Amino acid sequence: MTRQLPAFPSRGPSDHSVRDQIVEAAMAHFGHYGYDKTTVSDLAKAIGFSKAYIYKFFESKQAIGEMICASRLAMIMAVVDQAMDQASSPSDKLTRLFKAVVEAGSELFFHDRKLYDIAAVAARDNWPSAAAHGQRLHGLIEQILREGRETGEFEHQTPLDEASHGIFLVMRPYISPVQLQYNLESASLAAAQLPALILRSLAP
Amino acid sequence: MTRQLPAFPSRGPSDHSVRDQIVEAAMAHFGHYGYDKTTVSDLAKAIGFSKAYIYKFFESKQAIGEMICASRLAMIMAVVDQAMDQASSPSDKLTRLFKAVVEAGSELFFHDRKLYDIAAVAARDNWPSAAAHGQRLHGLIEQILREGRETGEFEHQTPLDEASHGIFLVMRPYISPVQLQYNLESASLAAAQLPALILRSLAP
Repeated sequence: MTRQLPAFPSRGPSDHSVRDQIVEAAMAHFGHYGYDKTTVSDLAKAIGFSKAYIYKFFESKQAIGEMICASRLAMIMAVVDQAMDQASSPSDKLTRLFKAVVEAGSELFFHDRKLYDIAAVAARDNWPSAAAHGQRLHGLIEQILREGRETGEFEHQTPLDEASHGIFLVMRPYISPVQLQYNLESASLAAAQLPALILRSLAP
Repeated sequence: MTRQLPAFPSRGPSDHSVRDQIVEAAMAHFGHYGYDKTTVSDLAKAIGFSKAYIYKFFESKQAIGEMICASRLAMIMAVVDQAMDQASSPSDKLTRLFKAVVEAGSELFFHDRKLYDIAAVAARDNWPSAAAHGQRLHGLIEQILREGRETGEFEHQTPLDEASHGIFLVMRPYISPVQLQYNLESASLAAAQLPALILRSLAP
């Protein structure tokens, strides 16, 4: 039996598992010592790799943090998308969007404290993954408003960008993990009252 | 010339200035080393008092922090009250309330970084002064809603407590200094767009 050679040179079949190993060690270290206090040397020592070897896979500590953060945010977006798929109308979409963001955010960041620290640094320093997450949700809001205006469900006197940015601002304290920690206590009440307030503001 | 004796025994004419001295030293130390890292011993050393003497005036470090925080929050409320006095209608009151909270909060806590640290601890740990400030603003919102319902300016289908709590939740990220720090960049846009969104939600 002959093995087929890959058409292009790859970094080898174990690259994925090396990356996984680094990310796993990083999650444990970040959770234990905090993101800020962990260095790439610490990670290298923990796995038994050289620092230089780790830099072959990730260009910086932030790149490792970004990977962890981005994958967690992708999970939140998957929950959001799924919730919206079940919606019966633009109003229902907005309500479900808000609820899913609050619930998935609380669940994924706070039932898993290890990740909170990274997410908080990402939000504080506006990492590309955190910024992109905010923009994606902002875009979703705008799209739902467009739909609701077309069906006549929402008013259309207010400029679209003003209406959607206002709603984004109402949601932001629940989107950003660093702010969500201060709003956890009232998160479930907010997930009920704020979409209702937003829908009243959109009434034609 | 004879000095008149006070009708009731007082703690002496210098009590006020001693308290002021302690608060002043505390503000400098909190600003420099952070609230959490400053001890009452540090303050005592800095002023040249004994720790026991400081405890005659303040029962704990938090009590000193509370005094600083409460006086700053009282300044914010004074700005809010003044802004509302100039309002021509309940709608105008709500708009001015929001604007004044954002502006006074940004000004008093962030142009004076020394105070931010204390305010953040107060908000994080829900000190009585911070909690009372939130409750007072919540009460103001409810009062304005009542007025607007009486004049027919606001809808009255939504239960009053739900409507006022929803508005309070929209404002809270700008009331709490610990959250305001993450919203400073968009604070002036928020002070324009959020009251407008709230007023749309209140339309009869």
